[in-house]
Amino acid sequence: MIFLKNDYSVGAHPDVMKVLNDNNLVYNDSYGDDVHSARVQEQVREMTKQPEADVHFIVGGTLTNRTCLAAFLRPYDAVVTTTEGHIAVHETGAIEAAGHRLVELTTPDGKMRPEQIDQVAAYHNMDQMVIPKIAYISDTTELGTVYTEAELIALREACDRNDMYLYLDGARLGMALGSDLNDMTMADIAEITDAFYIGGNKCGALLGEMVVITNDELKKNFRYIMRQNGALVAKASLIAMQFGALLSDGLYENLGRHCNEMGLKLAEGIVAKGYEMAYRPESNMIFPIFSKEKTAELEKEVMFQIWEEHPDHNVVRLVTSWATKDEEVEAFLELL
Amino acid sequence: MIFLKNDYSVGAHPDVMKVLNDNNLVYNDSYGDDVHSARVQEQVREMTKQPEADVHFIVGGTLTNRTCLAAFLRPYDAVVTTTEGHIAVHETGAIEAAGHRLVELTTPDGKMRPEQIDQVAAYHNMDQMVIPKIAYISDTTELGTVYTEAELIALREACDRNDMYLYLDGARLGMALGSDLNDMTMADIAEITDAFYIGGNKCGALLGEMVVITNDELKKNFRYIMRQNGALVAKASLIAMQFGALLSDGLYENLGRHCNEMGLKLAEGIVAKGYEMAYRPESNMIFPIFSKEKTAELEKEVMFQIWEEHPDHNVVRLVTSWATKDEEVEAFLELL
Amino acid sequence: MIFLKNDYSVGAHPDVMKVLNDNNLVYNDSYGDDVHSARVQEQVREMTKQPEADVHFIVGGTLTNRTCLAAFLRPYDAVVTTTEGHIAVHETGAIEAAGHRLVELTTPDGKMRPEQIDQVAAYHNMDQMVIPKIAYISDTTELGTVYTEAELIALREACDRNDMYLYLDGARLGMALGSDLNDMTMADIAEITDAFYIGGNKCGALLGEMVVITNDELKKNFRYIMRQNGALVAKASLIAMQFGALLSDGLYENLGRHCNEMGLKLAEGIVAKGYEMAYRPESNMIFPIFSKEKTAELEKEVMFQIWEEHPDHNVVRLVTSWATKDEEVEAFLELL
Amino acid sequence: MIFLKNDYSVGAHPDVMKVLNDNNLVYNDSYGDDVHSARVQEQVREMTKQPEADVHFIVGGTLTNRTCLAAFLRPYDAVVTTTEGHIAVHETGAIEAAGHRLVELTTPDGKMRPEQIDQVAAYHNMDQMVIPKIAYISDTTELGTVYTEAELIALREACDRNDMYLYLDGARLGMALGSDLNDMTMADIAEITDAFYIGGNKCGALLGEMVVITNDELKKNFRYIMRQNGALVAKASLIAMQFGALLSDGLYENLGRHCNEMGLKLAEGIVAKGYEMAYRPESNMIFPIFSKEKTAELEKEVMFQIWEEHPDHNVVRLVTSWATKDEEVEAFLELL
Repeated sequence: MIFLKNDYSVGAHPDVMKVLNDNNLVYNDSYGDDVHSARVQEQVREMTKQPEADVHFIVGGTLTNRTCLAAFLRPYDAVVTTTEGHIAVHETGAIEAAGHRLVELTTPDGKMRPEQIDQVAAYHNMDQMVIPKIAYISDTTELGTVYTEAELIALREACDRNDMYLYLDGARLGMALGSDLNDMTMADIAEITDAFYIGGNKCGALLGEMVVITNDELKKNFRYIMRQNGALVAKASLIAMQFGALLSDGLYENLGRHCNEMGLKLAEGIVAKGYEMAYRPESNMIFPIFSKEKTAELEKEVMFQIWEEHPDHNVVRLVTSWATKDEEVEAFLELL
Repeated sequence: MIFLKNDYSVGAHPDVMKVLNDNNLVYNDSYGDDVHSARVQEQVREMTKQPEADVHFIVGGTLTNRTCLAAFLRPYDAVVTTTEGHIAVHETGAIEAAGHRLVELTTPDGKMRPEQIDQVAAYHNMDQMVIPKIAYISDTTELGTVYTEAELIALREACDRNDMYLYLDGARLGMALGSDLNDMTMADIAEITDAFYIGGNKCGALLGEMVVITNDELKKNFRYIMRQNGALVAKASLIAMQFGALLSDGLYENLGRHCNEMGLKLAEGIVAKGYEMAYRPESNMIFPIFSKEKTAELEKEVMFQIWEEHPDHNVVRLVTSWATKDEEVEAFLELL
Repeated sequence: MIFLKNDYSVGAHPDVMKVLNDNNLVYNDSYGDDVHSARVQEQVREMTKQPEADVHFIVGGTLTNRTCLAAFLRPYDAVVTTTEGHIAVHETGAIEAAGHRLVELTTPDGKMRPEQIDQVAAYHNMDQMVIPKIAYISDTTELGTVYTEAELIALREACDRNDMYLYLDGARLGMALGSDLNDMTMADIAEITDAFYIGGNKCGALLGEMVVITNDELKKNFRYIMRQNGALVAKASLIAMQFGALLSDGLYENLGRHCNEMGLKLAEGIVAKGYEMAYRPESNMIFPIFSKEKTAELEKEVMFQIWEEHPDHNVVRLVTSWATKDEEVEAFLELL
Repeated sequence: MIFLKNDYSVGAHPDVMKVLNDNNLVYNDSYGDDVHSARVQEQVREMTKQPEADVHFIVGGTLTNRTCLAAFLRPYDAVVTTTEGHIAVHETGAIEAAGHRLVELTTPDGKMRPEQIDQVAAYHNMDQMVIPKIAYISDTTELGTVYTEAELIALREACDRNDMYLYLDGARLGMALGSDLNDMTMADIAEITDAFYIGGNKCGALLGEMVVITNDELKKNFRYIMRQNGALVAKASLIAMQFGALLSDGLYENLGRHCNEMGLKLAEGIVAKGYEMAYRPESNMIFPIFSKEKTAELEKEVMFQIWEEHPDHNVVRLVTSWATKDEEVEAFLELL
């Protein structure tokens, strides 16, 4: 079987495993009070040019989003998201379970527009309604698209004029940074947002994500919220040392770039064979349109996900990872 | 000023005040363990032909909805509602604050369709998504429309085939029952739904709503949830005795009928003057379309609410109540 | 039957009913935007000498406590209370359901001690523990005892040195103010606490409590939390006008004084007959110790509550209200 | 520095690292739908003689406790725990944040007594109080003590007669099973409890815990609650394969036994030097009493935790792990 179902189904990049193996029997203090955590926190502060940033280590993406939004919001504050936003679809109501309403926006490509923020803010104008207080975006988005700096700055300005925070889900930040369409550094993203997370699970780590908080208002007592949500892991040093490896020598971005190359090669090949794409291929997740018959045929040889079922065709999601090989892409294309 | 802003801005119908005055200095046991509560509970069981129904007294509508949905659902269960549903718009995220995601449906008239329930259930097909577990509807709806028995039965069947409960917000149940478009008794409504509430605040009571639970699965420990949500009032007897008055001699329905007559008279007069309606007038809430200038002019003489602001016109909400007088309707029409 | 079970089992004082009757058919704007609310808010600001105080109207005590604590605290903040505190025992975990841990303190008389606050604050010294952030006290306490100004100031100072708020549950504030042991005005209480509520349900109102917030940090967006918790009633004017009557001509305090006189007369009579008291009688709730036989005998003629069951005796709670008559007290004493 | 601060500060046992390395680049399906998860689930069902048990993989202990209790309880249900229970002290109110009150019991040794369960159940006898619905115990306890089978059965019977569940926190289950005082197999524990978890983090795993649910009532939709709480990790296979290694050839129990041997050797040495113990040493956590001076002296050479500060002495917690070496114990003893 060719595996194109997702980007989190092998372990870690060898460099990451190496650091875990090398440090395996060394004592480290717990809950982030260790040398690895301290060093990586410093590394992130330098990379982001945010010497005062708070950096925290959490195991998974849903837990990270839930913890951050629970920390950043008061009970009546709502989260603005696109309808495809991970928190809106695939987290079993985690944000609502933490007490917050989501306000959902329809977009053609998974990217939020600044005028949508203005409209939402204008509509919620009385105390019988929630307060839209944070814009949640993902880069790359859940449709594989990539934000430009101009787009992100425009969202930032919309948030500012509506007294809202901007939070970026970076589950696939490596792919965003490694995209040809991207024109931002990690420092730019840190500068433009109030908080974001650097995804590890889908970007070469064994397990782990890293939260970066730059807005002072959002920093206070964050570790209490982490602990209360079960997000403060005793062995935080294990996550830290993985990011230590990933953030060295451009590995993080390079892995993202490889993901994208494999994804775009796949897309080109599919288009060359005469198929259409439901969304523009920009990174490692691509969405070709296949007939019902072709879908069934492919399912015999390939693991992938049907994204949308339409009466006479499917939109299929194909995902490449840092571990995807050229041969796998070619093998898939031969099936068409 | 002519008051057409809402239907909850005078006190109680004189018959209701009388029973409160008559019983004012009599000792009653608390939290529903009193003779008034017992008698009204029995009265409701008879009216609804549900001898096993549980009947509870709560002070307000938002608190009633929040308490019921918190009681009926597990954390991962979601509530299906129309986009106009009171819980979706005007309760400041109360249901999400209780931990539940809302799944919202767009309709032309505020009435949920059975095929929408099927679609929602089909879409939520994995444990990364919430479980749509209860359909929340209002009768009359937030757009003043009225369900027919056939419509309600069709929703019931859709709920049944999708393992969902059906809950009816009866904040304006008096208006529904008193509508010419209605073809149900309170017993029909009790039979078709799993739980509903009989609104008092907008239907002649001083303060109070009455929850009726007919599905055994939903009855257990309901008083614990009430207490925990601050909905178990010590002086429940006060609510009970008000409903005792309202449910006697058809007063409840008669007050609803009067509300509707005033509303429809208003609508007819407005249409006769050449204005259009945004939604079909069916009860005591009507939605005429006025120019910006006309709106501004009316605001000097009338208290009402602008429902929707469009670039070149407004949809305005006019609401009549059991206390609205013919003269008030006529005075309004003279302003056009 | 003689009714000594609680102080919330008749309706309202006649002056309160009068104002409700007089205003019954007058239109009032809703959710506190009405003339009664405005006037009573001003009245409270004057009485408390807090021209900037925020004043809100809520129907019941549990809902008031839940709403206030949900509004004042962040998720990791805990509430410090005595073990008898209403929130700790008789609200079915309402505060925990709002997400907050209670830290409970044992006392001989229901009154919190400042050194206990210091100890609690010192103990909670790491981010694996909650932050004790608010001290919850009741005056009169759940054991009928009354705080002095010196005691309340000492608690205030303990809160200040430990970065905590002080919140006073005034369900029986009328009894506290009307006690001979009390040496505070309502202005003193407003000055010393950060927020408190003036109880109506047990002090002559039909239904209603009034929250007074003096600390600016606690005021922001309080109405949103009210609405979300179902505590923002449409007909807030009804609560306001009741307090208008209660706060005029010293009625509120006078009713409290009458409650206490009846309670203390009862206590004196019981002691004169040779019975002991479990707690010092200071207001309208007294706690005599009766044998099992005597308890059973009294239960035939009197409605009251057994507070503590011991192997060979009971502690019984007897409660007088503003409506209790001399004859009722005398009738009870004759039973001993 | 000698490290005796806790048992979770090195990585994983080499056998565990080996399986992670060996499988690192193999594709596995996600969220537990993989061969490792399936095989380990089967292995656990066999070991526990519970062919119908549900087995789930979660990353950490707090998250496991929070997820389980959120899943097993209705909002008004409370958790009974000892005052030392991990959920009561060191999880920053995680269970309350999930909406549940804790009822805390004082014990001399961290072990709950059946008669305490009876007392708690008898006391909570009205709908103004929560329902104690689950007994939470830890084995080994937070004071390092170990339950016997007779004790656990007695708790089970107390739970049964009071309609309560029994849940066992097995963060240190390896140490419990590897204790000379233990007379139970994992099958016995599975039989006696309704659900428990097999701790990995402190027992040789890199990261991970494993929940075993044997009571059918508690199984339904557990994965939804996991997802909602951020506890459903994409790479569940990584946790599964670690437990595959730990549960093979008795490794799990052997590591626990080693922990205990080191702990008891330490305790014996300390006692031999004339020091007293605050709690009876039964496993890998021991609690010697040291003077203030001695504590300060030791802090220069050893990492450990001060458990209780008394005016003239400290109770100190020393913890050995599966990685603790004889030399480290001896080096510590030489410091006395």
